Amino acid sequence: MPRFFIGSENICGEEAFVTGADAVHIGRSLRMRLGDEITLCCEGREYSCKLLSISDTVCRCEIRSCAEGESEPDIALTLFQAVPKSDKLELIVQKAVELGACGICPVLTGRCVSRPDEKSFRKKLDRLNKIALEAAKQCGRSIVPTVSEIISFDECVKRLCEKDIPIICYEKGGKNLREINWGDRMANMSVGVLVGSEGGFEPSEAEKCISAGIIPVGLGSRILRCETAPIAALSIIMNLTGNM
Amino acid sequence: MPRFFIGSENICGEEAFVTGADAVHIGRSLRMRLGDEITLCCEGREYSCKLLSISDTVCRCEIRSCAEGESEPDIALTLFQAVPKSDKLELIVQKAVELGACGICPVLTGRCVSRPDEKSFRKKLDRLNKIALEAAKQCGRSIVPTVSEIISFDECVKRLCEKDIPIICYEKGGKNLREINWGDRMANMSVGVLVGSEGGFEPSEAEKCISAGIIPVGLGSRILRCETAPIAALSIIMNLTGNM
Repeated sequence: MPRFFIGSENICGEEAFVTGADAVHIGRSLRMRLGDEITLCCEGREYSCKLLSISDTVCRCEIRSCAEGESEPDIALTLFQAVPKSDKLELIVQKAVELGACGICPVLTGRCVSRPDEKSFRKKLDRLNKIALEAAKQCGRSIVPTVSEIISFDECVKRLCEKDIPIICYEKGGKNLREINWGDRMANMSVGVLVGSEGGFEPSEAEKCISAGIIPVGLGSRILRCETAPIAALSIIMNLTGNM
Repeated sequence: MPRFFIGSENICGEEAFVTGADAVHIGRSLRMRLGDEITLCCEGREYSCKLLSISDTVCRCEIRSCAEGESEPDIALTLFQAVPKSDKLELIVQKAVELGACGICPVLTGRCVSRPDEKSFRKKLDRLNKIALEAAKQCGRSIVPTVSEIISFDECVKRLCEKDIPIICYEKGGKNLREINWGDRMANMSVGVLVGSEGGFEPSEAEKCISAGIIPVGLGSRILRCETAPIAALSIIMNLTGNM
């Protein structure tokens, strides 16, 4: 069933409204008709709706039922990804959304070859957030994970330390993800996962993380590419926490 | 350290030989010099070598030491992948090699939109095997996993049934990968994982698998793309079996 994300201001009692490009999409691309059913997602809840009116500016919907989104994991996982070369971040964002991340935060580390300035990255950011939105629709998320602005390595360490379980995937090895105690966790536990760019991390960066209490984790003896490591780590964490 | 795969006919007592394009690569692209060290892989073993002579046709190497490849998993995992659209199979092959698969076997299922004939696929197969070789070098494998010819769905079921643990990733759900008993396994246990193309499997195909004893497995409540599912499944299996 077609799936759209709306803001809470677009829900009014028993009715909900789809506006802008999504309204055009409903009427023209999908050629939906009055009475057809769509799912509207708003702040983690899913509304099963029936179309009452269709136009290029607004589609009015009757809300038939509402439920918590079933596809959301019960952990809040943020991926901190060192900026990789070329368009690899696009693949990483798409896959992280499919795998259940609640946010993706690009980081500048010492070994990043690609070092976009704020202005040139802002253009990329629009595109990355569109990819996140499309992935969220396609895989049935009920929130849209956001890709945030690039942060420095020090800021990343700070934010990681605010998570219940902060992890750095370190190419020189560390704990196995299975050795982390995922068992007795509180609801909506926060997890932060830092993954390096091509070439991984400077030893000084890894030391900084470890002395700040961030758990170094190894992903086995094969050298994973910088876009494979986050996909593998997220898959494994979602499985170990019962979310996949 | 540069890494090349050679056939057993290229090992002769204390010496090993690199020929063809790899010899050119050593001398011209990598600009290596006499005395430089390289790793040669042959049938799962790794030979630490020193270059004795370099030419465009053959590089002669002194074998310094030899060991079993440490990066090989202790399970033999074959990915049976229903042929996806466009060039997604290239990404899947690259990632499956990084994640430790020993072979990738494309399958034609009912819902495959892309249905290449044998001849047109043979060209693709060359390219896919080149991708597998490059991935094996890059991630430090000591064997080169092969991409085999396309097989029919019935042939796939037959081959899956020959594996110690045969699995189908089914979008309508099944066991969680953690529920499979990976514990008391024999050395070099064989695992077969079947993943669908866009749109997954026909119900009749899933039934055929299940009645043949193939274990249906679910990958959570989010709808994974057909290239994400094998990457996630392989990551999780390698973690659960202690290989990642």
